[in-house]
Amino acid sequence: MTWVDAAEGGFGVHHLPYGAFSTTDDTSVRLGVRIGDHVLDLRKLAANGLVDTAVAAALSTETLNAFMSLGRSAWDATRSRLQEILTDATFQTDVSPLLTPVGDVSLHMPFDPADYVDFYSSEHHATNVGRMFRPDGDALMPNWKHIPIGYHGRSGTLIPSGSDIVRPTGQRRTPDGDIIFGASVRLDIEAEVGFVVGVPSQRGQRVSVDDFADVVFGTVLVNDWSARDIQAWEYQPLGPFLGKSFATSIGSWVTPLAALSAAQVPAPTQDPQVQPYLAEANRYAYDLSISVEWNGTTVANPPFASMYWTPAQQLAHLTVNGASVRSGDFYASGTVSGPEKEQRGSFLELSWAGKEPVKLDDGSTRTFLEDGDTVVLKATAPGPDGSVIELGEVSGTIKPALS
Amino acid sequence: MTWVDAAEGGFGVHHLPYGAFSTTDDTSVRLGVRIGDHVLDLRKLAANGLVDTAVAAALSTETLNAFMSLGRSAWDATRSRLQEILTDATFQTDVSPLLTPVGDVSLHMPFDPADYVDFYSSEHHATNVGRMFRPDGDALMPNWKHIPIGYHGRSGTLIPSGSDIVRPTGQRRTPDGDIIFGASVRLDIEAEVGFVVGVPSQRGQRVSVDDFADVVFGTVLVNDWSARDIQAWEYQPLGPFLGKSFATSIGSWVTPLAALSAAQVPAPTQDPQVQPYLAEANRYAYDLSISVEWNGTTVANPPFASMYWTPAQQLAHLTVNGASVRSGDFYASGTVSGPEKEQRGSFLELSWAGKEPVKLDDGSTRTFLEDGDTVVLKATAPGPDGSVIELGEVSGTIKPALS
Repeated sequence: MTWVDAAEGGFGVHHLPYGAFSTTDDTSVRLGVRIGDHVLDLRKLAANGLVDTAVAAALSTETLNAFMSLGRSAWDATRSRLQEILTDATFQTDVSPLLTPVGDVSLHMPFDPADYVDFYSSEHHATNVGRMFRPDGDALMPNWKHIPIGYHGRSGTLIPSGSDIVRPTGQRRTPDGDIIFGASVRLDIEAEVGFVVGVPSQRGQRVSVDDFADVVFGTVLVNDWSARDIQAWEYQPLGPFLGKSFATSIGSWVTPLAALSAAQVPAPTQDPQVQPYLAEANRYAYDLSISVEWNGTTVANPPFASMYWTPAQQLAHLTVNGASVRSGDFYASGTVSGPEKEQRGSFLELSWAGKEPVKLDDGSTRTFLEDGDTVVLKATAPGPDGSVIELGEVSGTIKPALS
Repeated sequence: MTWVDAAEGGFGVHHLPYGAFSTTDDTSVRLGVRIGDHVLDLRKLAANGLVDTAVAAALSTETLNAFMSLGRSAWDATRSRLQEILTDATFQTDVSPLLTPVGDVSLHMPFDPADYVDFYSSEHHATNVGRMFRPDGDALMPNWKHIPIGYHGRSGTLIPSGSDIVRPTGQRRTPDGDIIFGASVRLDIEAEVGFVVGVPSQRGQRVSVDDFADVVFGTVLVNDWSARDIQAWEYQPLGPFLGKSFATSIGSWVTPLAALSAAQVPAPTQDPQVQPYLAEANRYAYDLSISVEWNGTTVANPPFASMYWTPAQQLAHLTVNGASVRSGDFYASGTVSGPEKEQRGSFLELSWAGKEPVKLDDGSTRTFLEDGDTVVLKATAPGPDGSVIELGEVSGTIKPALS
């Protein structure tokens, strides 16, 4: 039980996600940890000598990268120390002044992204997309159950929740075959879950599936905004590019993997058998229940536990060729879609490529995003002892295209 | 005429490429400029008060990023000042002690790469690859002459010339359809030319084709090592991933665009007409003559001036959707292949997918790379007044795969 007021919900002392914030009083960007509706200033906590000197310098920077690179023992020790400080009432007098209401802070990118990889690991999503785009072929590509398919995205346009999304412009081909230039008319979302690498690896070495929880620091929700018309015209043969690169929004609070131990559930059985480097002795998924809110209407509840490939397999795959990872490397799951229609994590799937409009609570209908629309992704997971973990939400509002 | 000894070749005072170096005496990484067979220490030059105070701090860092972000007027002023210092004999006494023989330095990544994009802009290369992989279809995809096709690569495995290349392992499908795991048996090169962004842009804004020389700082040679067997099995539908991400080697000396003004030649005519955002009032290519040396044998001479899409068009395209660029963003041309067989910039094309072995001077033959093989890319371009610019070479040697 924490001494902080009103902190027994999804951001209780069992959670403690990390972020980067500033205030109007002090516009410098510093690290904080969220407890209930407050943010604890870690730079001040370090300056007051309340954390281990080994982590104090890392906690006094502007992003999580230095702290994340220290490794799991430092993460665990810091988490334990923060739980001690926030539950032992003898700290209340000293630490209360270091708390700021979360409504009074501006949140920034919690880490400096190195490389960004986007996977494609939902069997239901890949099957839906395959059915729409290749109606006469097999819905899944022959490689899909052998490889966690993925590609590199643009790390420079990873942006924190709340950032506006300017509708992208680009080339597309009309149904008549004309090639035109203009604002995307099929602007979509992809509800995903992302993982942040803490500990770097060396080029020429591999990260095994067993090393996942020692290398990956934490997780955030992701909205991988996608311009379907731009993507459809550009993606052959080298994959998505401008249809995705204009913006990818992430949650501003990084939930440490340590907070999700109670959320581990068995991952789907894989058939055919995977290559040994992808085989997991302890195969588990995270039971995150995602909600997709479109102008306030919940239009989908994608279940993350249904993903065919786990984040441990994704990490092992992306390094099996000897590619190194850096602190701040970020990889996302791909659109999370469950087997049911109301579990689909993109509007492309929910509206079946625009053929089945989605009804919102205000009586309007939608196929793809309109200017002024706001999308909010939220997620909860089981916490310890019947508690709940609430991931940091990801919101974004569509602004008109540049002329 | 410079007062530095033996500096009238491809690295004369008309060139002055920038790099990052260290020495055994001083293992700290600092910036330098190459003049002939020497490196001028820019950190010491700045400490001695010999450059403008506005650039002194930027020139005293470990990478070019800060200097590059200052913009073209700072680049031009610094270049003029360096030319003055290196040609006016009154500086010789003070500046000679700041020169180190290039053979005595270790070279590092000259810039900290932000995002890395790889294009596919040679019509001859794209046509050759299309003929090999889609013998029954059109060699060029329908989008190819409308869009400078590209995709994001892995910036964390951009490495400087001379770094070893560990043969990658991964999944591939055998001709019999078996899916196996092991070392790549079709390890290839791609001879490319890369461009380094200096001046950042804002998300939601575009960089026009006319802004190219104000935004891009300079150029380097690139070897985009490619495991063709891994790539062939993984690349549908999201593009190349592990087949490319293990290593991409770049030249250690960044040639400023300002050094290449005499190398501008007309770029190939484009038909059909491109969209207005890709139309260039002053359309030019850079006349770089590349050589590909395989264990000392020159096996190809790809002509960079033959590329269908120019670097200005590539930059305009990658930002047309509102994607921002950062100082250190890097984009490469794609494999440079000319119309003739001996102008092809990959071994895939030179050996026609392994069917036509390449003969080396030692009497051996090759299709793809063997362990121990060394590839060196070099390039020259016309400099002012009949001089020659020699780009920093890119070398790499293949080491055996991890077991």
